[in-house]
Amino acid sequence: MSGRLFTFVGGASGAWRVSRTETIVGEALPEVACIDMIAGDAPQAIPDAQWILRGITSNERYVERAEKVQLLAKQQGLGRSAATLGALIPIRKNAAWWALTQDERRSIFEAQSQHTQIGLEYLPAIARKLHHCRDLAEDAPFDFLTLFEFAPEHESAFNDLLARLRDTLEWTYVEREVDIRFVRS
Amino acid sequence: MSGRLFTFVGGASGAWRVSRTETIVGEALPEVACIDMIAGDAPQAIPDAQWILRGITSNERYVERAEKVQLLAKQQGLGRSAATLGALIPIRKNAAWWALTQDERRSIFEAQSQHTQIGLEYLPAIARKLHHCRDLAEDAPFDFLTLFEFAPEHESAFNDLLARLRDTLEWTYVEREVDIRFVRS
Repeated sequence: MSGRLFTFVGGASGAWRVSRTETIVGEALPEVACIDMIAGDAPQAIPDAQWILRGITSNERYVERAEKVQLLAKQQGLGRSAATLGALIPIRKNAAWWALTQDERRSIFEAQSQHTQIGLEYLPAIARKLHHCRDLAEDAPFDFLTLFEFAPEHESAFNDLLARLRDTLEWTYVEREVDIRFVRS
Repeated sequence: MSGRLFTFVGGASGAWRVSRTETIVGEALPEVACIDMIAGDAPQAIPDAQWILRGITSNERYVERAEKVQLLAKQQGLGRSAATLGALIPIRKNAAWWALTQDERRSIFEAQSQHTQIGLEYLPAIARKLHHCRDLAEDAPFDFLTLFEFAPEHESAFNDLLARLRDTLEWTYVEREVDIRFVRS
C-alpha cells in the first residue's frame, strides 16, 4: 500500500514551471513560480515554500465496473514525453455535498453530471490522477488534488473538458477551486 | 470540519479498562490494560503506550437515503450512562476489496451481506461510531476503527451482531480484526 501519498510544494523552485494560476471559486492560493511533486510526505519546513498540499490516492468512490472497463481501455498514465503541459487543480466541496448519502452523490456525479462520461471523451489525450485530502487531516484546505497532463495540441480540449465539468450540477457543490497550469521541464 | 480526528491509546492507564482482547484474524495487537480516547491528534511520544491508533469520521460510503432515514430514526449516540460496556474493533480489508469498484463493494456490503440491515436490528441498544484510517496515512495498520457502546444486558446481543457480520461475504475480505472489549469507568 506504499506509494499512495504525494506532496505538492509551491515555491520559487521546482520541476514544473507555473504558467498561470486562476482562482475559479473561493479563497486563492499564493501565486508561485514553480511546483515540485514529492513522493511521500515532505519535511515540515521547506525553504521558500508558499504552500504545501498533500494528497493520497485511494479506491474509487463512484466509478462502477462498466465505466472502469471503459476507462482502463482508453486511459494512459502520467509521464508521457509528449505531455509537456499540466494542471494541478485543488478542489473543496461544501458541507451539503458531504452530508449527502452515497446514492445521492452518485446520482449527482454521474446520472445528472456525467462526470465519468465527459472525462472518457477526452481520453487518452488528457491523463488524470486523483489525490484525496479530505480524510488525510482534520482541516485539509482541499478535498481533492487532481493532476492532469497533456500535449500542447490538446490544451484547448482540456479547457473544453473543464468548462463542461464546471457547468454541471456537481460543480454547484464546489466551494473552492484553483486552476494552476504548468510546463513540465 | 474540526472534531473529526480521534486518537486511541492503549497502555497501562486510561479511562476505559480492557476486559478482553481477541485477535479474530491476522496480526495481534499488544494486549493492554486500558484505552484512552483523545479528541484530535496525540503527541508523538506517549509514555507507556503500547499502541496508538488514529481514525477520522467521514462521509458515508455505502448507506443510501432510505437506510439513513431508518438509522437516524433508531440510533442513539455514544455516552449514555447505562452503556457501561464497550468495544473497539480495528479492521483492515484486503487488497481485493479495495480493487473493487463502488457498485461491486456496495453489492457485497448490502445486497449480499445486509451490513446496514443487520446493524439496524440492534438499534438503539448498540451505539456505534465509525472512524476511517485508510486515507489518513499511507501505511495505516487498519482501515477502520469502530467504537461500540452498550449496557451489560445487551452484551449477548452485541456478540450475536458480531457473529452475524463475521459470517457474511463482506467479512471474507477482512484480513485483520482485533476485538477489544472494555468497561467504561
